[in-house]
Amino acid sequence: MNLLDGKATAAQMKQEIAQSVLEIKNSGKRTPHLAAILVGNDGASETYVNSKEKDCHEVGMSSTVLRFPETITEAELLQEVVKINNNKDIDGLIVQLPLPKHINEQKIIETINPDKDVDGFHPLNVGHMVTGLPTYVSATPDGIMELLARYKVETAGKHCVVIGRSNIVGRPMSNLLSQKANPGDCTVTICHSRTKDLKAFCLQADIIIAALGKAEFLTADMVREGAVVVDVGITRVPAQNKSGFKLLGDVKFDEVAPKCSYITPVPGGVGPMTRVSLLKNTLKAARGLR
Amino acid sequence: MNLLDGKATAAQMKQEIAQSVLEIKNSGKRTPHLAAILVGNDGASETYVNSKEKDCHEVGMSSTVLRFPETITEAELLQEVVKINNNKDIDGLIVQLPLPKHINEQKIIETINPDKDVDGFHPLNVGHMVTGLPTYVSATPDGIMELLARYKVETAGKHCVVIGRSNIVGRPMSNLLSQKANPGDCTVTICHSRTKDLKAFCLQADIIIAALGKAEFLTADMVREGAVVVDVGITRVPAQNKSGFKLLGDVKFDEVAPKCSYITPVPGGVGPMTRVSLLKNTLKAARGLR
Repeated sequence: MNLLDGKATAAQMKQEIAQSVLEIKNSGKRTPHLAAILVGNDGASETYVNSKEKDCHEVGMSSTVLRFPETITEAELLQEVVKINNNKDIDGLIVQLPLPKHINEQKIIETINPDKDVDGFHPLNVGHMVTGLPTYVSATPDGIMELLARYKVETAGKHCVVIGRSNIVGRPMSNLLSQKANPGDCTVTICHSRTKDLKAFCLQADIIIAALGKAEFLTADMVREGAVVVDVGITRVPAQNKSGFKLLGDVKFDEVAPKCSYITPVPGGVGPMTRVSLLKNTLKAARGLR
Repeated sequence: MNLLDGKATAAQMKQEIAQSVLEIKNSGKRTPHLAAILVGNDGASETYVNSKEKDCHEVGMSSTVLRFPETITEAELLQEVVKINNNKDIDGLIVQLPLPKHINEQKIIETINPDKDVDGFHPLNVGHMVTGLPTYVSATPDGIMELLARYKVETAGKHCVVIGRSNIVGRPMSNLLSQKANPGDCTVTICHSRTKDLKAFCLQADIIIAALGKAEFLTADMVREGAVVVDVGITRVPAQNKSGFKLLGDVKFDEVAPKCSYITPVPGGVGPMTRVSLLKNTLKAARGLR
């Protein structure tokens, strides 16, 4: 069993990105700059945005967080997005979701300049991704693809079962892994809540992407010997430790891992790769390389 | 065995569309209007565009074909697209593909106003389709979905195997049939040239979408009893008849049909549905309902 070590890989990538940022600065160009919009006082959103800011600083990028009260109107928020679209000092813009209910998220996302849409949520970028054109791939799927690439996991001709059809993980993964590309060229089966006999599909899989969001759902009896398992789930459960909680993936790691050729741990697998992918996209944006 | 009769269904839909067009005219509004751009003198392209024009007239829509010589530059063609984008008398625009090699097709497609992109090829519309938002779905996948809907073919929880990953058929079909929708909610496996043991996948399928473009590829030994088979292939082969050729699908109809619960014939299956879907999208455009 080989660990797909997201933590170590992300750390390595951060060094590479920091080096590229340094080269950009040394060449006399402006420092790559990520802007984040944060609306309201949601604790989790606050934490995510803080992490993203910290990551930027670690690799030498600039970051700006624009905070707005929960009472901001949709029209006002759209104006703020347009301001950043037009701000030549900012390369990438993310709008931390969810937004308050009175704001149409899709409208906000579609107002972001696709060239600055480093989250890859704009439908234009989704369309490019699906048709195999260069684009910003959203952070979690991009991080998974990068991890498979760096560990040289063989994907061509393999059968990949993706569990979950969310627009941010399952669906892009199924489209990416079935592309004529490397990693890619998989026969992909996309499974979801309406799938009958999920276990039978999983038992046929060379590669399983578990992205359904149910703690320890994937058990050893669902995985065949030698499979590659990527665990996208993160569920917080109460625990008797300092923080009072621990993180569980969608995979029952202890029993599944011994059967796998490769597996991602939780934490330390997909999570750090997701974070670093945002930096990668911001660097691409700064280089004008969407 | 039930025939999914695309010819009859398309004829029925044409009547419905003609009725809607009449209502629009009777309400004093402008006649729905489709524009087609045709570059060069490719025989097949000429035939397709003529069919589309004929279809428009049959349902009472206006159509305009703009013909340009093969020597038109990319910049000139882009200008023509922009002119139609800005022409308030035109609801839908299609650019007949392929274009001459000196013209970047993707650039032309992305210049079409997404609101007029009745072919559904603009990546913004592809992105909407993939994320389950209202959009123009391109004609062949839209026609297949409509056919399944009208025949009330049960899809929820079924295993659908899509053979082929083209951006105009296989990929959209795999995304549409796996959406939380009806038709939809299928577990979908997307297969392609790199798939190993395609037969084994096909034998597990409740629904097969054959879109690989190889005449009579799918044989009876690859299909299980009671399957639904949709044949997207059209290959011309020489024949001893008046026209000198006949059309073959991707499915060996005579031997596969007896095993099926539903099957589309070729010709008279997906083809007519594809044609009528363009009219459906043009009507949507005229109503401002992308």
